[in-house]
Amino acid sequence: MPGFASDNTSGVHPRVLAAITAVNKDHVPAYGDDPHTARAIKRLREAFDADAEVLFCFGGTGANVVALASLVRQHEAVLCADTAHIWNDECGAPERFLGSKLIALPSRDGKLRPSDLEVALRPGRGVHRAVPRVISITQPTEWGTLYTAGEIRALADLAHEHGLALHVDGARYANAVAALDCSLADLSHRAGVDVLSFGGTKNGLLGAEAVLWFDRARADTAAFARKQAMQLASKMRFLAAQFEAYMEDELWRRLAGHANAMAARLATRVADVPGLEFVHPPSCNLLFPRLDHEALETLQAAFYFYTWDERAAIARWITSFDTDPADVDDFAVAVRSAMTNV
Amino acid sequence: MPGFASDNTSGVHPRVLAAITAVNKDHVPAYGDDPHTARAIKRLREAFDADAEVLFCFGGTGANVVALASLVRQHEAVLCADTAHIWNDECGAPERFLGSKLIALPSRDGKLRPSDLEVALRPGRGVHRAVPRVISITQPTEWGTLYTAGEIRALADLAHEHGLALHVDGARYANAVAALDCSLADLSHRAGVDVLSFGGTKNGLLGAEAVLWFDRARADTAAFARKQAMQLASKMRFLAAQFEAYMEDELWRRLAGHANAMAARLATRVADVPGLEFVHPPSCNLLFPRLDHEALETLQAAFYFYTWDERAAIARWITSFDTDPADVDDFAVAVRSAMTNV
Amino acid sequence: MPGFASDNTSGVHPRVLAAITAVNKDHVPAYGDDPHTARAIKRLREAFDADAEVLFCFGGTGANVVALASLVRQHEAVLCADTAHIWNDECGAPERFLGSKLIALPSRDGKLRPSDLEVALRPGRGVHRAVPRVISITQPTEWGTLYTAGEIRALADLAHEHGLALHVDGARYANAVAALDCSLADLSHRAGVDVLSFGGTKNGLLGAEAVLWFDRARADTAAFARKQAMQLASKMRFLAAQFEAYMEDELWRRLAGHANAMAARLATRVADVPGLEFVHPPSCNLLFPRLDHEALETLQAAFYFYTWDERAAIARWITSFDTDPADVDDFAVAVRSAMTNV
Amino acid sequence: MPGFASDNTSGVHPRVLAAITAVNKDHVPAYGDDPHTARAIKRLREAFDADAEVLFCFGGTGANVVALASLVRQHEAVLCADTAHIWNDECGAPERFLGSKLIALPSRDGKLRPSDLEVALRPGRGVHRAVPRVISITQPTEWGTLYTAGEIRALADLAHEHGLALHVDGARYANAVAALDCSLADLSHRAGVDVLSFGGTKNGLLGAEAVLWFDRARADTAAFARKQAMQLASKMRFLAAQFEAYMEDELWRRLAGHANAMAARLATRVADVPGLEFVHPPSCNLLFPRLDHEALETLQAAFYFYTWDERAAIARWITSFDTDPADVDDFAVAVRSAMTNV
Repeated sequence: MPGFASDNTSGVHPRVLAAITAVNKDHVPAYGDDPHTARAIKRLREAFDADAEVLFCFGGTGANVVALASLVRQHEAVLCADTAHIWNDECGAPERFLGSKLIALPSRDGKLRPSDLEVALRPGRGVHRAVPRVISITQPTEWGTLYTAGEIRALADLAHEHGLALHVDGARYANAVAALDCSLADLSHRAGVDVLSFGGTKNGLLGAEAVLWFDRARADTAAFARKQAMQLASKMRFLAAQFEAYMEDELWRRLAGHANAMAARLATRVADVPGLEFVHPPSCNLLFPRLDHEALETLQAAFYFYTWDERAAIARWITSFDTDPADVDDFAVAVRSAMTNV
Repeated sequence: MPGFASDNTSGVHPRVLAAITAVNKDHVPAYGDDPHTARAIKRLREAFDADAEVLFCFGGTGANVVALASLVRQHEAVLCADTAHIWNDECGAPERFLGSKLIALPSRDGKLRPSDLEVALRPGRGVHRAVPRVISITQPTEWGTLYTAGEIRALADLAHEHGLALHVDGARYANAVAALDCSLADLSHRAGVDVLSFGGTKNGLLGAEAVLWFDRARADTAAFARKQAMQLASKMRFLAAQFEAYMEDELWRRLAGHANAMAARLATRVADVPGLEFVHPPSCNLLFPRLDHEALETLQAAFYFYTWDERAAIARWITSFDTDPADVDDFAVAVRSAMTNV
Repeated sequence: MPGFASDNTSGVHPRVLAAITAVNKDHVPAYGDDPHTARAIKRLREAFDADAEVLFCFGGTGANVVALASLVRQHEAVLCADTAHIWNDECGAPERFLGSKLIALPSRDGKLRPSDLEVALRPGRGVHRAVPRVISITQPTEWGTLYTAGEIRALADLAHEHGLALHVDGARYANAVAALDCSLADLSHRAGVDVLSFGGTKNGLLGAEAVLWFDRARADTAAFARKQAMQLASKMRFLAAQFEAYMEDELWRRLAGHANAMAARLATRVADVPGLEFVHPPSCNLLFPRLDHEALETLQAAFYFYTWDERAAIARWITSFDTDPADVDDFAVAVRSAMTNV
Repeated sequence: MPGFASDNTSGVHPRVLAAITAVNKDHVPAYGDDPHTARAIKRLREAFDADAEVLFCFGGTGANVVALASLVRQHEAVLCADTAHIWNDECGAPERFLGSKLIALPSRDGKLRPSDLEVALRPGRGVHRAVPRVISITQPTEWGTLYTAGEIRALADLAHEHGLALHVDGARYANAVAALDCSLADLSHRAGVDVLSFGGTKNGLLGAEAVLWFDRARADTAAFARKQAMQLASKMRFLAAQFEAYMEDELWRRLAGHANAMAARLATRVADVPGLEFVHPPSCNLLFPRLDHEALETLQAAFYFYTWDERAAIARWITSFDTDPADVDDFAVAVRSAMTNV
């Protein structure tokens, strides 16, 4: 059954699988000391226009935790929105692995604004309070909203002014860059981001994420953190090959662009459905429509997607790099029908 | 350059890659709620003849840590040999993630014997000493030696008698089973093993390990530990597919058997080389020859392998599922030549 | 200079010091295996009318962490108010030591109500979210507000219904019991509390806290947690002696009652000062008056107390077991003068 | 019953108790911002002839963990003897709190020598092995043996040459300094020690330890570690007062000297008892006599001390700052009698 549950229900893009197959010959050194990994890192540096430290990780939680591990010590804290994946969806892995405190700040739309951080950044109470050392934001957010480059810059400036680093959980970073029609650099180091978790798995890779440190000095112990975080692949070439294919001819942008377009198509198709409204204006490949309870139930019987808020009858629809326009159209018809028959 | 550095310098067996390709269609639920994962688990249970809990992990360190996490609390300790991968080669990941103490016991050949454990299992000093709760052994050991089923049973009985569990780090478990010509069950639950890290990556998979709990009650919180240990793959089908191919027609045994045979071939070819002796009798796909310093240097200029002990001129040679007999023969000639020219 | 900064700026009550002196003879077993400790525990059980497990700790943060350590595993979470000492004032010690997540819920007055917990107690998202296992409240709260026995019971019932435990951080528990004129049991196990951190240091002890588990089964590993939390005193008799004196003739109630009375006296004296209002109605020995910035500055030049909220000109005044009524009266005059001269 | 079980079965020296009593007046700032603490720190700096950072802790395990926390990050390791208190007797608190690995090296007499460290200090295997960052020794050792200043210097030089720090667990440091008749500085910073846990509790204090960082740069986050390690006393003056008394007129030396003298007296009295031999030559206040099983049993029925090694019939006798010579003599007679009647 076609679905809009998540972009990780999709498979692997053919070019990515071909790249994996292509590097499957000969013996090469393990753990990343191989030419494929070197080449993939080079591609990433070129694409980001930055001499960044790059480490590949198995998964998104792993990438975030490795990124944060390089930025905080155990008595320091990470500030994030209360909608953040690191706060809600990683089962406490950051706290357990880091030993550090995460502090969630209320956010209505998934975004943090400088004013949200003001209280947390006030001078602390000496040794009694964990010292904030990182602001971690998600781009796009878990609500599918986007930070502009200017908004990121404002957070970066605030962070740096207070001696903090700015981390971006970019599990869907490609979708943000594609949606804002800018470059990989524009929303990261050019906007002041220090460390980026650059996702691949949700956008057509088999399973690979990259962490980029734009200031390599910050990554001095990151390779150890990756090993300790159990994110060091022995047959690294197969992660690297995925990223090489991903960066080639901006495949990442094409795939993310498609997912975004499919979400836009769906949003347009149902825009005038009576009673349906989007919690936040659609801007990338995540949609959060408020339906009604009966329609929600009807739709879930035929399509695979998540209910985001049971009581408020809010669903989450996610499109993917391989979402079929025909499926979108069928789904839009079904949504209209379900909402009209109420 | 052909090499004997490790079995993770090799690539992916074609049948495994084919299986990955085969499941790359349609959208399926993420995180393991898909039919491919269910099928792979079924195959593992059949092959092990056990209604085990099975969780796939990304890597070997991850698998070990998830296994141990289900067995110890923070004031409890893991006993292992001082040669163990969890002690030497995981960068302290177990201690960091578990919060628990690892206690290494001296071992000459990588194996633990009941008498080695005697002191550690004596009644403790109340709350002053971390309480041993797991004996963790490696099969085959890091020295390439093997535990017989009887030896495992003796350790299991000792463990259970004292309220401990027996964990096996089986990153190369297939090589042990193939070498001892027995079944997957014989060296695990039939010998009293409680939890097994069953490796795949070193034996022809792209990157996948399985943890098996033979007593499912012990796995009650294991799925949480896997998530926290950053080992939960979102596109799980691609890990499961590897294991499905691995179990089919005992591919694991064929591949491990080949690696073992290549090591035996190499050992035989150099058996009479003057001055060369194996630290331990060759028994699976790991060989530890004592050479001399000059020969070691000569060989490393032309072949890729590790020096295990610089001062003692001990090398480590590992053969793989795809090691070419011709490469073995060439290497044997080179070894003879290097040792004779000294 | 007389002060209202905190109840831990005060010293030791003479009867407590006398008790310490009295047990300073002979050699006795260390770590609590001595008759003084046994006697103090007996006194606590009698006073609480409960066959509780009792462990003495050095300090308040240590007591809270030991209490929580007995209740959560690493993938589980502690729910608390965002005003909680464990959230704000323990420098991330709980997260670091437990490896577990703390989740702070917004609270206006320091108290949690069942409705505040509703969202957090909704069924989770499988392994993706840390599982709430403890509700931890502070009594009296950091705002000096109090939970009635009925309010605690409601939280306890909610907790137990969802498989959680109820922990009370009672660093000033004696003040709450004295203020509500009830028994030690009434606000703890009779109201459904599972584990209590029963403070002593802030109420006239030299330095000692007790943790009580009313269901001793929950304390099965607590002694190990105390040792690991570095809270196990070798010369335990000197902690025990403090508690013995504290329990005798309800010294705890007399001291806390005095502190409460002094706060009430101060509140009454300044009640009609124009422009001064208390953020929450005074109910024990903590007062949070809203002053104005100039008066705040004037007062702090002459008296030792903390500004709680710089921008809102809110101060924190705490009275102690040994606060002198004359000092209270002098301070009240100064407050009136500072506020009137504005 | 008089005993030789440990120096923490003894009480508090009268001058220490008097000092506690003397500071019990007035309100003073909590957490160490008080004049008593400042004065005690000044005394320690004078006594050590060093501008050290000094932090008081509640207990010995806490002091060690705080010391180590300032020296290692989570991917780094602490090297110690397998007899070390941090390895055997702290219930894994270091691993749990630090997240770091402890690596125990075999030691016959509790001491580490440069040659023992050679293998551990060899260049590592990149990210696969935790990086040794601290050598931690105990002075005197758990076997009662002593490091000379020259031996410490050799370890310090080795440590520094490899980028490690040298930590001394000096729970009985005073006994070592008294036994070697030197200064507090001679066995610490003058011999290259970086951080010292300077014990007090076992030598007549009620409960207080000090950690000294001779290079204050190393202590930059130590105050946070102390808070997180739950070692920050709110009523700090009562810890400080103990140390002030301890340093005055070298009370520490007098008390330790007495304990040492009592052990020497006992050793002398039983030196010619047939069948009795000391495992290591008596050098401070710890004695490890090898008796026989029957005598051991007889003696333990009448005196309080520990059996160190059941099978080898080795006892541990510890004398204290207040050990009575008459008790020593009585005990010596009993030992002779028990051994002779065998």
